[in-house]
Amino acid sequence: MSMGSLIIIGGHEDKHGERRILREVAARVGERKMVIAAVASRHPETMRKMYEAIFRDLGVKHIDFLRVEARDHALAGADVLDESTAAVFFTGGDQLRITTLLGGSPVSRRIREIYEAGGLIVGTSAGASVLGETMIVRGDGGESYRIGSGANMAPGLGLLPGVIIDQHFAQRGRIGRLVGAVTHNPRILGLGIDEDTAVIVDNSGCLVIGAGGVYVVDARSMTYSNLAEEEENCALTAVGLTLHILSQGDRLDLLTRTVVAQPAERADRPIGSVGSRIPVD
Amino acid sequence: MSMGSLIIIGGHEDKHGERRILREVAARVGERKMVIAAVASRHPETMRKMYEAIFRDLGVKHIDFLRVEARDHALAGADVLDESTAAVFFTGGDQLRITTLLGGSPVSRRIREIYEAGGLIVGTSAGASVLGETMIVRGDGGESYRIGSGANMAPGLGLLPGVIIDQHFAQRGRIGRLVGAVTHNPRILGLGIDEDTAVIVDNSGCLVIGAGGVYVVDARSMTYSNLAEEEENCALTAVGLTLHILSQGDRLDLLTRTVVAQPAERADRPIGSVGSRIPVD
Repeated sequence: MSMGSLIIIGGHEDKHGERRILREVAARVGERKMVIAAVASRHPETMRKMYEAIFRDLGVKHIDFLRVEARDHALAGADVLDESTAAVFFTGGDQLRITTLLGGSPVSRRIREIYEAGGLIVGTSAGASVLGETMIVRGDGGESYRIGSGANMAPGLGLLPGVIIDQHFAQRGRIGRLVGAVTHNPRILGLGIDEDTAVIVDNSGCLVIGAGGVYVVDARSMTYSNLAEEEENCALTAVGLTLHILSQGDRLDLLTRTVVAQPAERADRPIGSVGSRIPVD
Repeated sequence: MSMGSLIIIGGHEDKHGERRILREVAARVGERKMVIAAVASRHPETMRKMYEAIFRDLGVKHIDFLRVEARDHALAGADVLDESTAAVFFTGGDQLRITTLLGGSPVSRRIREIYEAGGLIVGTSAGASVLGETMIVRGDGGESYRIGSGANMAPGLGLLPGVIIDQHFAQRGRIGRLVGAVTHNPRILGLGIDEDTAVIVDNSGCLVIGAGGVYVVDARSMTYSNLAEEEENCALTAVGLTLHILSQGDRLDLLTRTVVAQPAERADRPIGSVGSRIPVD
């Protein structure tokens, strides 16, 4: 694969302390140009200012801003995503704003081009959800999945095929809705990412960084589900799922869905663009 | 086994509508005597009045009340738990109040006798947690498990050996703390019970009733955990857990840890003391 990299953040990443995740983003952008896309947010200017200040403080010099507040803008393309753009950062907000405004437009095609040419695409919260093939668009946390509550899924931007990403995971009690989602089709792997936690996907594999956990729900081992059989509002039954909880330094092979757990002493050293090249084996 | 039955309720059971779970309790008590134990609560009189009114309305005629507000009371035994007592109902509150007041006392020995003689022991919320071998006594929901945050476990009353019970499960985002608990020793099976949902354990097996889900976390399949290796405050890694989500009508064989999922049409019919005798096979 000659794809670029993804950094998928579970939301609420540290913005004032060590800023481990955003620092990693900045290190990977380096001297190149990053475009902030606050398309998900109803307050894009506030988001722009906040992230621009943080990334400047972390040493990113070339920052620009993608302005798309209506689908017309996306259909017209975006000059800001020029040849020099090496990274795009999707902020939080509502994932359906991103997909309804950008989906199938020259802007999202251009973002995919940047990614396929080796660029870095980052998303936090709603911006994380859209990176997967499919995304969860509704469904409360703090409850178990109910049949007929609607699949509550929609196509994401698809930069990470075969994966559905949920965020604010432990914090919002989302195991029920993620299990509900992957039970619909165990082909899709569920990744539930805690706040201030991220998954870095690049040629060397899929690496966890940050303070919390990443829940990997693999339903391929499922032996039974009542999903297609039951009436509205029945609670879900799903038997024999495989669950991994990963923490900083652990790696997941997305093709084989196997985990390479890593001792913390190796996870603690800076990863930058060197440590992240430890091969998955 | 000639044991009695347990009804383990995830808290917040319906008290005003169909009252499916409390109705099942009442049906199993029948004409016999039930003792309400509000030991977990700091407002035992309020609890007593509330549950007494509900159970009288559901047809239970013989209701008495276990008064234990200090360990002295428990050490003196409790005449209320006489030969005619067929059921004990533990309300919610703080599970450590139950175990510190009753643990190792003539009262808890008498409750075990009632159970072993074929009686019914019911617990909701904190009263559910104490029924297991081990119980979780602290640990916030809404976050992933962190190493060194303390095992946060203590011995329960042990009526259900080999099991750790968590309650208010989806509602309080407790997958992190239950996974943390069972990872300490995969011998222990984790049962996370949603609100208004219960597990009935009797000679015919272990049956789910109610509105929500029951999460079964079986860590025997775990291939790696960083629990014993990492420093304080590291997030947990746990690879290869098995997760089942059960709903009303499903059965779990606690010995083999296998699930017999059941179509809803069978689950919908009244279970009383007849339907619950469907053999697990």
